[in-house]
Amino acid sequence: MIFSRIIKIFLIALLIFIASSTVAQEKDNHSTFINTIYKTTLAKGATYELLRELCEKYPKRLSGSDGAAGAIEWTKKLMQEYEFDRVFLQDVMVPHWERGEKEVATIHYGDGKIDLSVLALGRSIATPSNGISAEVVEVKSHDEVTELGRENIEGKIVFYNRPFSQEFVNTFRGYVATVNQRSSGPSQAARFGAVAVVIRSVSTGDDDHPHTGTLSYANDAPQIPAAALGVHSAEKLSTLLQKNPKLELFLKFNCQNLPDAQSYNVVGEIKGSTNPDKIIMVGGHLDAWDTGHGAHDDGAGIMHSISALRTMQVLGYKPKNTLRVVMFINEENGLRGGKKYAELAVQNKENHIIAIESDAGGFTPRAFGIKGADSSLTKLQSWLTYFPDNTISALKKGYGGADINPLNKADGTPTVGFIPDSQRYFDVHHSPADVFATVNRRELELGTASLAAFIYLVDQFGL
Amino acid sequence: MIFSRIIKIFLIALLIFIASSTVAQEKDNHSTFINTIYKTTLAKGATYELLRELCEKYPKRLSGSDGAAGAIEWTKKLMQEYEFDRVFLQDVMVPHWERGEKEVATIHYGDGKIDLSVLALGRSIATPSNGISAEVVEVKSHDEVTELGRENIEGKIVFYNRPFSQEFVNTFRGYVATVNQRSSGPSQAARFGAVAVVIRSVSTGDDDHPHTGTLSYANDAPQIPAAALGVHSAEKLSTLLQKNPKLELFLKFNCQNLPDAQSYNVVGEIKGSTNPDKIIMVGGHLDAWDTGHGAHDDGAGIMHSISALRTMQVLGYKPKNTLRVVMFINEENGLRGGKKYAELAVQNKENHIIAIESDAGGFTPRAFGIKGADSSLTKLQSWLTYFPDNTISALKKGYGGADINPLNKADGTPTVGFIPDSQRYFDVHHSPADVFATVNRRELELGTASLAAFIYLVDQFGL
Repeated sequence: MIFSRIIKIFLIALLIFIASSTVAQEKDNHSTFINTIYKTTLAKGATYELLRELCEKYPKRLSGSDGAAGAIEWTKKLMQEYEFDRVFLQDVMVPHWERGEKEVATIHYGDGKIDLSVLALGRSIATPSNGISAEVVEVKSHDEVTELGRENIEGKIVFYNRPFSQEFVNTFRGYVATVNQRSSGPSQAARFGAVAVVIRSVSTGDDDHPHTGTLSYANDAPQIPAAALGVHSAEKLSTLLQKNPKLELFLKFNCQNLPDAQSYNVVGEIKGSTNPDKIIMVGGHLDAWDTGHGAHDDGAGIMHSISALRTMQVLGYKPKNTLRVVMFINEENGLRGGKKYAELAVQNKENHIIAIESDAGGFTPRAFGIKGADSSLTKLQSWLTYFPDNTISALKKGYGGADINPLNKADGTPTVGFIPDSQRYFDVHHSPADVFATVNRRELELGTASLAAFIYLVDQFGL
Repeated sequence: MIFSRIIKIFLIALLIFIASSTVAQEKDNHSTFINTIYKTTLAKGATYELLRELCEKYPKRLSGSDGAAGAIEWTKKLMQEYEFDRVFLQDVMVPHWERGEKEVATIHYGDGKIDLSVLALGRSIATPSNGISAEVVEVKSHDEVTELGRENIEGKIVFYNRPFSQEFVNTFRGYVATVNQRSSGPSQAARFGAVAVVIRSVSTGDDDHPHTGTLSYANDAPQIPAAALGVHSAEKLSTLLQKNPKLELFLKFNCQNLPDAQSYNVVGEIKGSTNPDKIIMVGGHLDAWDTGHGAHDDGAGIMHSISALRTMQVLGYKPKNTLRVVMFINEENGLRGGKKYAELAVQNKENHIIAIESDAGGFTPRAFGIKGADSSLTKLQSWLTYFPDNTISALKKGYGGADINPLNKADGTPTVGFIPDSQRYFDVHHSPADVFATVNRRELELGTASLAAFIYLVDQFGL
């Protein structure tokens, strides 16, 4: 009796031992594979050289431009050369805005004049062909425009000069706290009779690169031209206004809003071996402002996405589920690519396990932010131990990304945003400084590795 | 009876509630103060402008140089202007090595010649005044030198061309795996009769900046001249050697090892209100290689350290323990400052709670590494929740720092190393590229904030 009990206890202990060592072994296998992903990417990853090629060949990729068309063709061919199982385009009609000739912003005072560093905001209308000259009213906020009222605003150029809120560790919080002077500032000024708007660039940098970005014209206000000044130029204008509140600013832009143009999302797939109909999607946006190279925004994201799948392919990994990379068109000034993707996903009854976006630059990885998988959050967080030190330090609730948000809204697909370190992003964002030279090879490749590792974990464990 | 029991339970519950809410309140106060540190530093920190001034005024700070003397005087004055309670110097005799005229490394082949990008290694002797010309033996390791033996090495220049090990997330691991070709490679080659050594720079970068750093001459080998080539120059030399193994390399350096010079550690203190004899020390090293500005190595560390104390002062914080900042001299080629500091600490029976060093660059913060406080590690790790997201993500075992290691050895003081992101450090380390322009303001200020927050926690809770 006692003997059989001992045997029983022994057998149970043995079973527990086998089970736990199997679990440990599996854990170990996953860790080994993820370490291989990181080592391979850091030592031999192609992301950096691909991004260099993109930035050299197609630096200007605004929706409807020749650059965007070239980049669409190039990324499609790249995935075909990689022999992804399926590469195709999705038709998307996109807004087509063109900047035209170089903008002019000049301060006239006495016999002198000073040229300011300026970029029209996306969607802005042109000034009259011979420009606009008017006095300037400097404000810090929408409320200040309201308070000043029509008697102080009418016929003038409103100058929003609120600095970037630097106090947040997460620069996206500072961006959100500042960006309304760009997005809705022009219409707010127009409501009170302003003839044009200039803003201090929404930038963390201490330099004179103007940072563009899209404005949104409200239906209840006339459309007026609007542009961003470099931070130093904004400070110069402010200083001169203090000396002479009557000084005149001359503005001349030749932007055009042309008819919508035919464009595309670019999609590539590696088919799943077990569940080919279940999709793990990763992507970024192919379009970029026409100022620098769109290296961080979002050349990094699309090269991350293709390279994450390429890494799995090179390592001989056969996914259970279909891995899909999507390069969305028109994130910057319309989001038509993201909307069209969601529409087609619903129409085709596609089954997305998850959609992941990289659209915060090619900087050193810090976290993933997850939206719409609250019940899975504990499970996701248990994956943290798989990521090497100083790569992904948190898996937490957060925003997925602009391009994948319509999919989340349409069918509830959980979305995940890749969160690299944000300190340098708004130094270059939407400006002529967003060039390949500001990308660090190792930081960029670590993004690819982190995305590949996350995709691997979703493929292995589901959500 | 029952009634009194109910009252008892009620009173106990009340006590627990009060106690736990007091704990929560205290936790909340600490969090609030630490958030204030971060916000203040990001919005108004002076670290970046101080580093700019240091890099502009005293870019060349090698031990014994005029630049080092100037920086000693400048940092001392700065802390006096801040009205720290005590500012003083510690006498340190330092090695005095000078690079002399710009080095020359030229490949001669046929009628042509190619100039390579070169920097003599620290402590290297000069070549004969008319230079050295010799055939080149390319190797990847010390072992390969041994295998080739005297018959293949004697009279030749040994060229160590092992690339930086890029596969580690932590670039310091790659550095350790590669750096022996610089530190002990020259003596290893000299043992087999080599007349000089050139190495491929120990660099993560894909460029042609040579990266210097100190060599160590062994006692059992003749001293021979040694220098680092830029990575592109090393690749060029390797390619040409494959075509013509007999090509000759011409080297000419005028370095000098001069007699030891008088120098100093610079020390500043804010006195503790409760335990003035207990010291929380933070520092970096004041000396730097003579090539760029020593902006990351280690201008960042010394400006971090002064600014961490300055932040506490500006916020009106009265420390319980004495806060001390130390700017060590001679980390790069002798460590005399760190050794002298430890010697004086023992001699004066000083009581250090902890010594913290920032000597890994002005990049975005990731962690603190702790040596010699194993029993306190759990306590330290409980502090992690105080650090904002995407700043300090780990408090873990690790190396403190070169300058504070002698103190740890001498009296067991626990040491702590600030660990910023390491991806870009070895792109610039010891090279002409380590200039102020490569420092990002926000990343640098986050280092100051993280150090100030850590010092605050040690001051509040002890180890």
